[in-house]
Amino acid sequence: MPADIVTIASEVLAGHTVEGNFATLVRVLAREGIAVVRHTVVPDDRGAIAEALREALARVPLVVTTGGLGATPDDLTRGVVAALLDRKLTLREPLLAQVRAKYLSRGIQPPPAAEVLALLPSGARALENRLGLAPGFHLEAGGRHLFALPGVPEEMEAMLLDAVVPALREARLAAPWLERTLRLVGVPETTLAALVDPLLPPGVQAAYLPHAGRLDLRLGASAGPAGEAALRSIEERLEERLGAALYACGETTLEAAVLARLRERGLTLAVAESLTGGLLGGAITRVAGASEVFRGGVVAYANEAKQKLLGVPASALAVHGAVSAETARAMASGARRALNASVAVSTTGIAGPGGGTPRKPVGLVYCGLAAPRSTFSYRFQLGGSRAMIQDRSVTLALHVLWLFLLERLGDLAAHADAGGVGEGRG
Amino acid sequence: MPADIVTIASEVLAGHTVEGNFATLVRVLAREGIAVVRHTVVPDDRGAIAEALREALARVPLVVTTGGLGATPDDLTRGVVAALLDRKLTLREPLLAQVRAKYLSRGIQPPPAAEVLALLPSGARALENRLGLAPGFHLEAGGRHLFALPGVPEEMEAMLLDAVVPALREARLAAPWLERTLRLVGVPETTLAALVDPLLPPGVQAAYLPHAGRLDLRLGASAGPAGEAALRSIEERLEERLGAALYACGETTLEAAVLARLRERGLTLAVAESLTGGLLGGAITRVAGASEVFRGGVVAYANEAKQKLLGVPASALAVHGAVSAETARAMASGARRALNASVAVSTTGIAGPGGGTPRKPVGLVYCGLAAPRSTFSYRFQLGGSRAMIQDRSVTLALHVLWLFLLERLGDLAAHADAGGVGEGRG
Repeated sequence: MPADIVTIASEVLAGHTVEGNFATLVRVLAREGIAVVRHTVVPDDRGAIAEALREALARVPLVVTTGGLGATPDDLTRGVVAALLDRKLTLREPLLAQVRAKYLSRGIQPPPAAEVLALLPSGARALENRLGLAPGFHLEAGGRHLFALPGVPEEMEAMLLDAVVPALREARLAAPWLERTLRLVGVPETTLAALVDPLLPPGVQAAYLPHAGRLDLRLGASAGPAGEAALRSIEERLEERLGAALYACGETTLEAAVLARLRERGLTLAVAESLTGGLLGGAITRVAGASEVFRGGVVAYANEAKQKLLGVPASALAVHGAVSAETARAMASGARRALNASVAVSTTGIAGPGGGTPRKPVGLVYCGLAAPRSTFSYRFQLGGSRAMIQDRSVTLALHVLWLFLLERLGDLAAHADAGGVGEGRG
Repeated sequence: MPADIVTIASEVLAGHTVEGNFATLVRVLAREGIAVVRHTVVPDDRGAIAEALREALARVPLVVTTGGLGATPDDLTRGVVAALLDRKLTLREPLLAQVRAKYLSRGIQPPPAAEVLALLPSGARALENRLGLAPGFHLEAGGRHLFALPGVPEEMEAMLLDAVVPALREARLAAPWLERTLRLVGVPETTLAALVDPLLPPGVQAAYLPHAGRLDLRLGASAGPAGEAALRSIEERLEERLGAALYACGETTLEAAVLARLRERGLTLAVAESLTGGLLGGAITRVAGASEVFRGGVVAYANEAKQKLLGVPASALAVHGAVSAETARAMASGARRALNASVAVSTTGIAGPGGGTPRKPVGLVYCGLAAPRSTFSYRFQLGGSRAMIQDRSVTLALHVLWLFLLERLGDLAAHADAGGVGEGRG
């Protein structure tokens, strides 16, 4: 089943915002056997929206729009759809009551403009917005389906999963497609592709999705016993060959996998961060339920903080410097002690753009690890911008922790292409 | 001058590759006074490309395509353009010589298929590809201009700057455009729009760009004394009326503005985080040069960490709870002391999805602030997902700090629609 996506967002066309919904839509729709055949971005302009929707509805049986559902004058989607499909915009009283209740629950008196949010084209079915104020809607006209979703990515994704997918299945627009996502860390894309591509039978698709030192492998096949068997067979062979680099299959993150493993083993975690400045702790606490395992951390950006809060010896800082294996280990040990955790990881390095020297260039990063009986540190040389170096450092710290939990820290030395150099010390 | 961008890339529609040219194109074209009015992504399919190009050329005088210029069978752009505009594809011998020379300079014998790269629609002018093999081209037909550029982002950007911009200026398609970005915090989009829209003279455009509790207002006008004066006049009137909510004009962030203000006043900063788990410190250390001002922080996720590292009294935790005004204040004071900073901010709250109660629901957040002579805390009730609540909490902590630096903490109580409730205490 082919579909068009129409993004209604002046801010995207103006280059002020990066389009943040398309990738999610493609991924979720693909699981329902729906292939996106065109993506169009138009401004918040009545004529432009109408033209794009008219073209899309003439071309494909399914059109999904994002954006233009708020209560300000540049939110035009519901009015344009109503005019285009010759429907009246009608006020839905129950919907208005819900919208008002949402405002009040946030301690805000509903403004008069809030009424706009409860206007829908006649015949449209409202789609609940669990995370925001503006409802979406689903309209069927002459066998064509239009789903209007909000532009805020979190709201869009929740509505897509909660309401759109069930509606697609109910309307029999979905055709089953099997997908498996294998999640890896510390494996370059070219290495993985050289391993995977020869294993793929006809009809099985593979996509490689790298991000900040992690790599997702998405495998897809038509639903049915043959596709199921093909995917299972590839998965089993990859599990054998990839070992600890494969940290999960399915919808999860490296943070969540690490936390789950810590929980299983009854361990608690602390962090000590320098160049990541809180991003590591932040990534960990993104995971719901992190508090069962994560005790907290110290962002020791200044050297004084490294000494005072983490007990890093002045001598380590003086002799080896803040960016050194010794300091990384002392930071991890200090966090473990200060936060009374079973294990702790640390990051210290030079994020740039300033601060590099020939001996310690921008991108030099040490990750330390403190466990009950030993401490370790690993040296990495990263490239890219400040943000890229920080984000990859978060991944490296989680990778070190993951390998420790699997008793596979020895693998790090083997990952020469990931820049890992073991400096374990008992 | 309006333009369409047509991306020709099956891999983007399939979700395997993230579109990487659009942002660059918009930015460079905007500087030439060219507004992108539609972005269309189509697959490597003859019919789909032809349809999109036909629609685009009917709509706007300038169309830029990316992708489909290589030498493999799925590279269809030059053939489709030639057919659409009724031109012959002709082999350009000098171009072929250049292409062959490029292959040889890379130590590769030119394959027979390389000839395809030197085929151009008759009347088209070749655009040099400094970083790759495939030339682009520029075609004018009936006053409409089409630029065909490669899909590889580095090649596209080089060709855009080297060849397309000069051609646009030569063809007098470029017209300079002025832009100003006003950056605000604590003002709802609807409130700002109600203030700004009546001030806009004809020809001045406004765009509202909200993200995680912040709001950017982008104003644009044609270059020249009239546009310059119009923008300056609006800017001045908004500065008067918006007061402390307007934290910057131009390319910066709230974090950077707060750090700059702290640096000016010779102050240092520490943070204490609970529900944000490091995201606040992470946002601050994203700013290059943060180390001049930011001393570090404590992620006190567990109550024990709040007591031990921040000295939060057990009584405050027992009587008022971890999510309370008292704990927020004690966390900030503790971070200020432990990290020897001039000021400190704290966050504590319930990010969800679990952990809420009727008295302390998910989204309840307190921000604390400790300054040399006083401590404060502010209560907020937020909505949305765990990540949204965490991200908005980061903004709130920075907002509290910003208002403190401007001696405008009193404004928080007035921002009832932002959910702020002041609980200052000397």
